[in-house]
Amino acid sequence: MPVRKFMESAIEKARKGLKKNNSPFGACIVKNNKVIAVAHNTVLEERDATNHAEINAIRKACKRLRNHELKGCTIYSTTEPCPMCFSAIHWAKISQIVFGTRIRDVRKLGFNELPISASVMKLKGRSPVKITPDFMRKECVELLESWKKKKGKTY
Amino acid sequence: MPVRKFMESAIEKARKGLKKNNSPFGACIVKNNKVIAVAHNTVLEERDATNHAEINAIRKACKRLRNHELKGCTIYSTTEPCPMCFSAIHWAKISQIVFGTRIRDVRKLGFNELPISASVMKLKGRSPVKITPDFMRKECVELLESWKKKKGKTY
Repeated sequence: MPVRKFMESAIEKARKGLKKNNSPFGACIVKNNKVIAVAHNTVLEERDATNHAEINAIRKACKRLRNHELKGCTIYSTTEPCPMCFSAIHWAKISQIVFGTRIRDVRKLGFNELPISASVMKLKGRSPVKITPDFMRKECVELLESWKKKKGKTY
Repeated sequence: MPVRKFMESAIEKARKGLKKNNSPFGACIVKNNKVIAVAHNTVLEERDATNHAEINAIRKACKRLRNHELKGCTIYSTTEPCPMCFSAIHWAKISQIVFGTRIRDVRKLGFNELPISASVMKLKGRSPVKITPDFMRKECVELLESWKKKKGKTY
């Protein structure tokens, strides 16, 4: 069962990123009920197209566990992982994805998302990862709303 | 039109990686006929699931151009980009992908690939990136064959 405090960590981290004008996305990787890594999107801050919250969190977790495989881990994402992040999660052999808002929600905000859902990626890619959508959706929508209200934002 | 010397760079880099027991993949990013970044896969060497050749090359290129967008660039990949790398290429707004061997070739070697081709990702994701497959396929098959012959290899 997904645990609220881990999604809250991801949201809190995303809000920290927002203050530095990053995009409104956070992720938290958990193993055996312990947080292994938390990260927010840093594409703009670090000028790197690959620095989505999930990729940043996976990189931190690999470093921390000294392993390119993160078996038995769950990743909490404030928004459904995009196909890049879904595939990184697959490569890292993370067991479960729990997410709040959906790709279609952030596409509506103007993000240049490939419109391929995690469930389609799982199906087409025959990935064993478990997916739990819409967890704490309300709080994750609020996060996107906070970003929407900001002035002078970029993508 | 794809240029042989850029794929040769990617292959040469992959062969350097092979010597350090990395997986047999290389990528080269080019803009205005100049090499911006070349990288090989470092998943095993750096114990990071996200360190595919294309991701490494994109990260280097973003750093070099000080931009999270790589418009007007072409990426040469010794093997067709996996969905993670395809999506990273989309996010970075790279204009063209040129690749040698196919995902199905490396799945046969035992790599845990999501079996979703770049052309399916482009179609489903409605991505504008151009795709040129099977470029210098023979040389890229030889690269995979070199890897296959190695003893004690891991994934």
